[in-house]
Amino acid sequence: MREIDATWMRGGTSKCWVFRRDDLDIPDLSVDDVLLRLYGSPDHRQVDGVGGGTSTTSKAVILAPSTDPDVDVEYTFAQVGIEEAKVDWGSNCGNCSAVVAPFAIREGWVPAGQHETSVRVLNTNTRQLIVQRVPTPGGRLDEAASEHIPGVPFAGAPVRMGFVDPAGRSTGHLFPTGRERDRLSDAVGGVTVTLVDAGAPVVAVRAADVGVRGDEETGALDATPGLLARLDAVRREAGVLMGLADSPEAVARAVPKLALVSDVASDDGPETDLTVRMLSMGRFHPAVPVTGSVALTLAAGAAGTVVHDLVAPTGPVAGLRLATPAGCVSTFVEDHDDVPVVGVVRTYRRLASGSVLLPDPPLLPSAPATASA
Amino acid sequence: MREIDATWMRGGTSKCWVFRRDDLDIPDLSVDDVLLRLYGSPDHRQVDGVGGGTSTTSKAVILAPSTDPDVDVEYTFAQVGIEEAKVDWGSNCGNCSAVVAPFAIREGWVPAGQHETSVRVLNTNTRQLIVQRVPTPGGRLDEAASEHIPGVPFAGAPVRMGFVDPAGRSTGHLFPTGRERDRLSDAVGGVTVTLVDAGAPVVAVRAADVGVRGDEETGALDATPGLLARLDAVRREAGVLMGLADSPEAVARAVPKLALVSDVASDDGPETDLTVRMLSMGRFHPAVPVTGSVALTLAAGAAGTVVHDLVAPTGPVAGLRLATPAGCVSTFVEDHDDVPVVGVVRTYRRLASGSVLLPDPPLLPSAPATASA
Repeated sequence: MREIDATWMRGGTSKCWVFRRDDLDIPDLSVDDVLLRLYGSPDHRQVDGVGGGTSTTSKAVILAPSTDPDVDVEYTFAQVGIEEAKVDWGSNCGNCSAVVAPFAIREGWVPAGQHETSVRVLNTNTRQLIVQRVPTPGGRLDEAASEHIPGVPFAGAPVRMGFVDPAGRSTGHLFPTGRERDRLSDAVGGVTVTLVDAGAPVVAVRAADVGVRGDEETGALDATPGLLARLDAVRREAGVLMGLADSPEAVARAVPKLALVSDVASDDGPETDLTVRMLSMGRFHPAVPVTGSVALTLAAGAAGTVVHDLVAPTGPVAGLRLATPAGCVSTFVEDHDDVPVVGVVRTYRRLASGSVLLPDPPLLPSAPATASA
Repeated sequence: MREIDATWMRGGTSKCWVFRRDDLDIPDLSVDDVLLRLYGSPDHRQVDGVGGGTSTTSKAVILAPSTDPDVDVEYTFAQVGIEEAKVDWGSNCGNCSAVVAPFAIREGWVPAGQHETSVRVLNTNTRQLIVQRVPTPGGRLDEAASEHIPGVPFAGAPVRMGFVDPAGRSTGHLFPTGRERDRLSDAVGGVTVTLVDAGAPVVAVRAADVGVRGDEETGALDATPGLLARLDAVRREAGVLMGLADSPEAVARAVPKLALVSDVASDDGPETDLTVRMLSMGRFHPAVPVTGSVALTLAAGAAGTVVHDLVAPTGPVAGLRLATPAGCVSTFVEDHDDVPVVGVVRTYRRLASGSVLLPDPPLLPSAPATASA
């Protein structure tokens, strides 16, 4: 058995175990093998590990100081499989990335400023630079709970996260087809969509075009007959148009994401610019992925997109107030020496710190067949 | 913010955080308040805490050396509410109790023997003494994974747990009504049941008497029209007969437990004595609660019970092989100087160790109404 230093943190609406990169360098074992065994995978309950048995609680963040003078900390995100003995390294998690700056400051990798500290974080999965700002009054990280975000009932400590020049990280272009809108084939209903790549590749679909209002509860949308299947077909055709795969069947489950957008606003809620329901891993998301909110914000600023039509901005878009199932998520757009920076404020909390325990090999389940649950 | 020493362990088919009793003694806060905030309750996801959002992963074990010369370690079990800001102290968790002996030996509270160490553990919720035996070759606790139990896909380190003289801990009598079987009212279908109190109060119902075979998958039983509602009515009427409450409405959700029993055996599985599907907190349990298996074992040994009829033992019952949804669970019965000791073997694993972090008050959610998920 081996002890591996680890910190359990909430980042935004996710929980992740945070590791120093060197600490996962175990002789004769791949990082994938180490994470899977620590998390108790494969097992739908992850009962013999630190995984939480859901996609938002089976995540890891792996950190190291950077040798690049323009970057302070490098960060790799791992989605640890639950029932499948597989680690997915193909995408970033914007919520989890909120833990990086506070962790780096506590480790002493980045000196704290007198009021606020800015940390340049590179996500290695997507080569995305994220500038994170956290309060450090008197030169010390302030972890006091002072902010709320939708989807987390308790207040947390804030991290302002700006995605630097996020357009085209996956495909090379903000609009991968070269057009602000595309009409899909009659096979998927001939809907007109906007295909946008910023933070993550996203397909924006007007809710009215697929027969829903757009402000329904996620459970009601999941249960609408035929809707998930139709939207997945839309997503797959869009993925091919964006150049992410050669055929609809080859399009990944996680990418592109799909956003149902509308201008339906509730009378009793806060004022918002756009109502969003986002698909994530085949179901509607309880809030909105951070990366998706970045994409929608840049799409809103470009005339001709289905998002721009709904938001109808009267000038440059400095941010969006998104009505999500969990509440209002606000994004911001800033100009840093002609480089656009798009982002949101997230909160974080350290939940536990110490070490996790890696059993000696063998690392795969070996229960007798009669003991399968 | 305050750091509180804690160890995360799997005990049987549950996960629990393990605390020294003194470490939860926080000025101006009740233990209930401390646990609820650490676990992130109330919140159906427990996203801001160390709770896992399910009943089997929102548990705490609180330990202290005992001053009683006949007891080594005292242990209190807490079921930490998830959506409700309430800690339930009313029952024991047999699975979690498996962590007590290994924790106590590691702490040095109990000296390790040269081959095996026996630890006398008192559960304070139920005043039940459990003698636990763990391997300690060469005087050191052996945490190597060498055993399998149903419901846990990975092997773990074994703990042999014997419930000492478990009959009547809640009601004073093994058969609280004074009878080995009781016919319930026509309002609940007039079924004949056995009401037994050992480990926990349990209502044993023949599966055939409520129109099912008894070896169905738990999901199929949960989905059988009317079954859960009828069994809950049976359970509540039985709870009143056992003296646990004055009216069916006042019977607790967790106690008594209900076991559907049958002699239906699968042809390709291991040989078993009794097929069991157990209700726990309103749904069918994926395996079988340890306390419930103790009750069924003593019921099988008494002529006239519905369990005895199905098992049809030819002599004294030295143990039962229970066919559960997760596999075969074996119990044992031993005689220690005329005191019956009934038990099972569980496995455990340390998952993480270090500390958990308690934010400063206020400890309740204060999210704006618009941010409710």
